[in-house]
Amino acid sequence: MKVNNQPQRTIWTDPDDGSVRIIDQTELPHTFTTDSLKTVEDAADAIVTMKVRGAPLIGATAAYGIALAMEQGDSDDALDEARQLLLSTRPTAVNLRWALETMTDALASTPRGQRANAARQKAGAICEEDVSHCRAIGEHGLALLRNIWQQREAEHERLNILTHCNAGWLATIDWGTALAPVYAASDAGLPVHVWVDETRPRNQGARLTAWELGQHGVPHTIIVDNAGGHLMQHGQVDLCIVGSDRVTRTGDVCNKIGTYLKALAAQDNGVPFYVAFPSSTIDWRIEDGVASIPIEERDADEIHFISDDASQVRLTPRGSRAANFGFDVTPARLVTALMTERGVCPASPEGLRQLYPEK
Amino acid sequence: MKVNNQPQRTIWTDPDDGSVRIIDQTELPHTFTTDSLKTVEDAADAIVTMKVRGAPLIGATAAYGIALAMEQGDSDDALDEARQLLLSTRPTAVNLRWALETMTDALASTPRGQRANAARQKAGAICEEDVSHCRAIGEHGLALLRNIWQQREAEHERLNILTHCNAGWLATIDWGTALAPVYAASDAGLPVHVWVDETRPRNQGARLTAWELGQHGVPHTIIVDNAGGHLMQHGQVDLCIVGSDRVTRTGDVCNKIGTYLKALAAQDNGVPFYVAFPSSTIDWRIEDGVASIPIEERDADEIHFISDDASQVRLTPRGSRAANFGFDVTPARLVTALMTERGVCPASPEGLRQLYPEK
Repeated sequence: MKVNNQPQRTIWTDPDDGSVRIIDQTELPHTFTTDSLKTVEDAADAIVTMKVRGAPLIGATAAYGIALAMEQGDSDDALDEARQLLLSTRPTAVNLRWALETMTDALASTPRGQRANAARQKAGAICEEDVSHCRAIGEHGLALLRNIWQQREAEHERLNILTHCNAGWLATIDWGTALAPVYAASDAGLPVHVWVDETRPRNQGARLTAWELGQHGVPHTIIVDNAGGHLMQHGQVDLCIVGSDRVTRTGDVCNKIGTYLKALAAQDNGVPFYVAFPSSTIDWRIEDGVASIPIEERDADEIHFISDDASQVRLTPRGSRAANFGFDVTPARLVTALMTERGVCPASPEGLRQLYPEK
Repeated sequence: MKVNNQPQRTIWTDPDDGSVRIIDQTELPHTFTTDSLKTVEDAADAIVTMKVRGAPLIGATAAYGIALAMEQGDSDDALDEARQLLLSTRPTAVNLRWALETMTDALASTPRGQRANAARQKAGAICEEDVSHCRAIGEHGLALLRNIWQQREAEHERLNILTHCNAGWLATIDWGTALAPVYAASDAGLPVHVWVDETRPRNQGARLTAWELGQHGVPHTIIVDNAGGHLMQHGQVDLCIVGSDRVTRTGDVCNKIGTYLKALAAQDNGVPFYVAFPSSTIDWRIEDGVASIPIEERDADEIHFISDDASQVRLTPRGSRAANFGFDVTPARLVTALMTERGVCPASPEGLRQLYPEK
């Protein structure tokens, strides 16, 4: 997508020095800065500190992390160490494990001496595949949004879409997951308007989603996470679309904390609730999302303090504890449909089997 | 309740100069400061700027506002002007209208010359009545919490209560509404622990509820508004208690934005959801809360910026819009029971009629 009208991806290789370049997303929306990853440790650090985040982008960064490791030394031990280091960065997004398995499977059969090169190519291929998957999600979603708009346009001035957290191009390589249909619809001339959940505690809706929609010229309004239910009660939301960090084989959806509450409100008000993600987000090994998906618990200071590029503000009394859960699980029964690069399907074991008969 | 171990109310009269004194709640939790109200305009300003807030305290402050007006001039016109000024300060809490009607009814039959005195006394009586109502809510709630704890104590180490926004003593004159049972239970030795919803955008949970629970020594943990559903899915919430700004005769509950989402999660997980308020919060004139209760829309800058006593931080990209709804309505069907000074009843027209046969 575009930043200041220039095409931009979230991760790319520098044609001059071969370094892996990323946007430092912790500086957005106040400052647009980029950063270089030169070692596997740099890649791991970028994931841990959330300079890069979003399930598909975490996977892509980890893939490049393996490539950087292979350039430092391409033994089996080095490969295994790099895999372990990267796998330990964050627990919830399954795309991380998927990318690392894809890389190590490819490199296991590659002779030493050729691994560094092969790893670069494979990481690049993972990125290209993600872009093409996100573009396909956008096309499937556009058809769906057109349908909803045809039913609404007689009464409504705009198609109101609510999203939670950031599942835009900043969470992927390009296009995004939940926002790919929004960009496709906006480009196709549908009068979309996005309600952007602030998404505490890291405010990735207010900071990232609002910023990228603004850069692309998509009308949007930031709301606090508390407001979505009220808007749905008053007919102000035509549909919800969110991304995901892990989808079970039964269609349970793990996503940024608070997603579950919006899905409940959507169901209570008859608002369709869609989840968009590439195939790499599906964890075929588990069934019960609430019981089985590890939920990251992060530093309480993300709740106690908030900051911009200039200052830091304390939000809570000294002496009060805070607990900081990163994700929650929305049971499949609350999800209207899942959307991947292969198409749209019901959130159920049968639905996913239709799209993935080989699994 | 206590501040630094000294008894404290939220509004009181200065024995020396007769001024009305309040805590400036916009400075909490960082600084405890008090302020003087000397004119009706001061009282209106304190409500508008949210130095005082919380439905019962807004009512009490408006009552003293009428008294201050009568001291400036006690004509019928002055009374009507004061009433109009105070009524326009905030739209949602019905206690404001109730207090103003109580005051003007009492003063209409009071001869000029005696109105200032009578108004002071009536405002004081409104405060005393609120304290006694909140104490009674605490007692009714304590019985209920004891019951729940008896069912839980074999398996649980603590009784986990989730609350939204601030419905503690800072929202009333003393004791609080939702927190009155919590204080009563804590004083009675029940091992209560409170999950405190941060409550964006003004963070009155993180700022006020956490502060007053901390001052009273009640164990608590601050969470973002997104987290309650996840905690309920994992059995970490035994019950929810919230306050209210307006309850309809059918039991619909208007409260701080986001309350509805927590009530949905409570229902989805079989967690009891209670609403505590004094009788002055009931609006007997309306039935359908979602359709009929005016929802305050506040300045978008409460979403764009956040500050402490030292600095202000921008949270959103320049150029992005924000919408700031203050309240939402939880339909009666999601409420386990209502709790007033008269007792506990189902959230239904019949339930309220049991407690209020005269209505």
